[in-house]
Amino acid sequence: MQRNKVRRWAVLFCAATVLASAAGRLHAADDVSVAPRRVLGILGGMGPEATANLYLEILALTPAQKDQDHIPTLIFSFPQIPDRTTAIRNRDRSIIPYLVEGTTRLERAGVSFIVIPCNTVHYFYDDMQRAVKIPILHLIREAVEAVVKRHPDARRIGLLASNGTIASGLYEREFRARGLSVVYPDEPLQNDCVMKAIYGIKAGMDKQTSEELLFAAGKNVEQKGAEVIVLGCTEIPLAFNPKRASVPVINATRVLAEAAIREYFQTAK
Amino acid sequence: MQRNKVRRWAVLFCAATVLASAAGRLHAADDVSVAPRRVLGILGGMGPEATANLYLEILALTPAQKDQDHIPTLIFSFPQIPDRTTAIRNRDRSIIPYLVEGTTRLERAGVSFIVIPCNTVHYFYDDMQRAVKIPILHLIREAVEAVVKRHPDARRIGLLASNGTIASGLYEREFRARGLSVVYPDEPLQNDCVMKAIYGIKAGMDKQTSEELLFAAGKNVEQKGAEVIVLGCTEIPLAFNPKRASVPVINATRVLAEAAIREYFQTAK
Repeated sequence: MQRNKVRRWAVLFCAATVLASAAGRLHAADDVSVAPRRVLGILGGMGPEATANLYLEILALTPAQKDQDHIPTLIFSFPQIPDRTTAIRNRDRSIIPYLVEGTTRLERAGVSFIVIPCNTVHYFYDDMQRAVKIPILHLIREAVEAVVKRHPDARRIGLLASNGTIASGLYEREFRARGLSVVYPDEPLQNDCVMKAIYGIKAGMDKQTSEELLFAAGKNVEQKGAEVIVLGCTEIPLAFNPKRASVPVINATRVLAEAAIREYFQTAK
Repeated sequence: MQRNKVRRWAVLFCAATVLASAAGRLHAADDVSVAPRRVLGILGGMGPEATANLYLEILALTPAQKDQDHIPTLIFSFPQIPDRTTAIRNRDRSIIPYLVEGTTRLERAGVSFIVIPCNTVHYFYDDMQRAVKIPILHLIREAVEAVVKRHPDARRIGLLASNGTIASGLYEREFRARGLSVVYPDEPLQNDCVMKAIYGIKAGMDKQTSEELLFAAGKNVEQKGAEVIVLGCTEIPLAFNPKRASVPVINATRVLAEAAIREYFQTAK
């Protein structure tokens, strides 16, 4: 009698265990089917409008007929990250914890890879990549690759970028390694047109004024022999009008959008 | 001799412990100062372009002179959330796990409150709010509140919204409770203009075509006596031209942007 009772309890216990485990698996299966398998991560806010612009480029370039065709995306716009040009000029590494906070928060939230719509911040690329296990696409290398592929005969590249990007030699090193030279706007134009437009856009200056400033800088690098113009700061495509340029224009933000879509679908298969 | 050795090691050990604890505190202090104290959360992707539009509205309405003045924001664009109008029509609750995945992922990622740029999905507001401890602002209630505050004499409100939002009575209940009546476009116009424009925008249809469709629907509710027009679907302000309306227009997306900014700064103090 006693033994039967034990046996009955043992059977009940086993059945309950099996059921609980099945329920657990069902629940897990639910989670798996609803949570996106891959998520694009964007560390933004540098500046915020440039971040929205990258996202709009991604939407425009994604083949989609309905909402559900678009890429699940997590955007952390963290505008409190200190000014990049200032950090490079002052060799101030207090920016690093902000960048680590940005990339690790995205990683913890489950993104599969990260893109960062800010050219200048790629000076700190190694610090950011070291902080996470997921890959960070490299905006500058993608942009240089695009120039070389699309304009293989160009020898002299005009660069419109922030003082920080220019001082760091981020683009120049990559172009030189491929035998190409870089021309920049003359220093007064760099400060009074390019930098004025960049900070102006961040402050909400009207787009027409910024466009004229960037137009002048573009004409200057054309006069200095640029065969292609690279928009190497994510604020610049917000106001630069490529139709007014006499040479082809490579928009680094759009190249990054294309790279993000490629990376997502390559590994989503 | 032996005792001295022990004492020396003990002193070294204590010193090391104190140093390690100080370093730990310093590190913790670093984290506290760098991570944003409050973060705005946006559950988006319904559709993705409407999400970008809300974010641009927030940027335009935030008083900011530089990047760092803007609100730290985490946007989860999750376009895989099933179609809301279809879910309401079919009484299909399989949409709920997607909405819970969206809101809980934002909560786990540390946002302080959530806004959702999609009118129709507010049919499931209680399910979403139950899933998280942080508050979710209510787009429809904010929009109705804005109409009443800004146009206290209006008695008849024209609503341009999705079939799902209309069928659910989301706006109608709130307006009726305030003694206001709602007029909708005639059914053929609702389907062939409003819904065609909404799905067209999601599919990348040209904006001029959508604008003409929405213009016709707007004129129709004006003829039916609307004293104010509410743009009650987040796709609609992407193509509706308020300058062509003869009555005041309330853009629910812009109202949500204002509410998000108010909520952030109210509690950020």
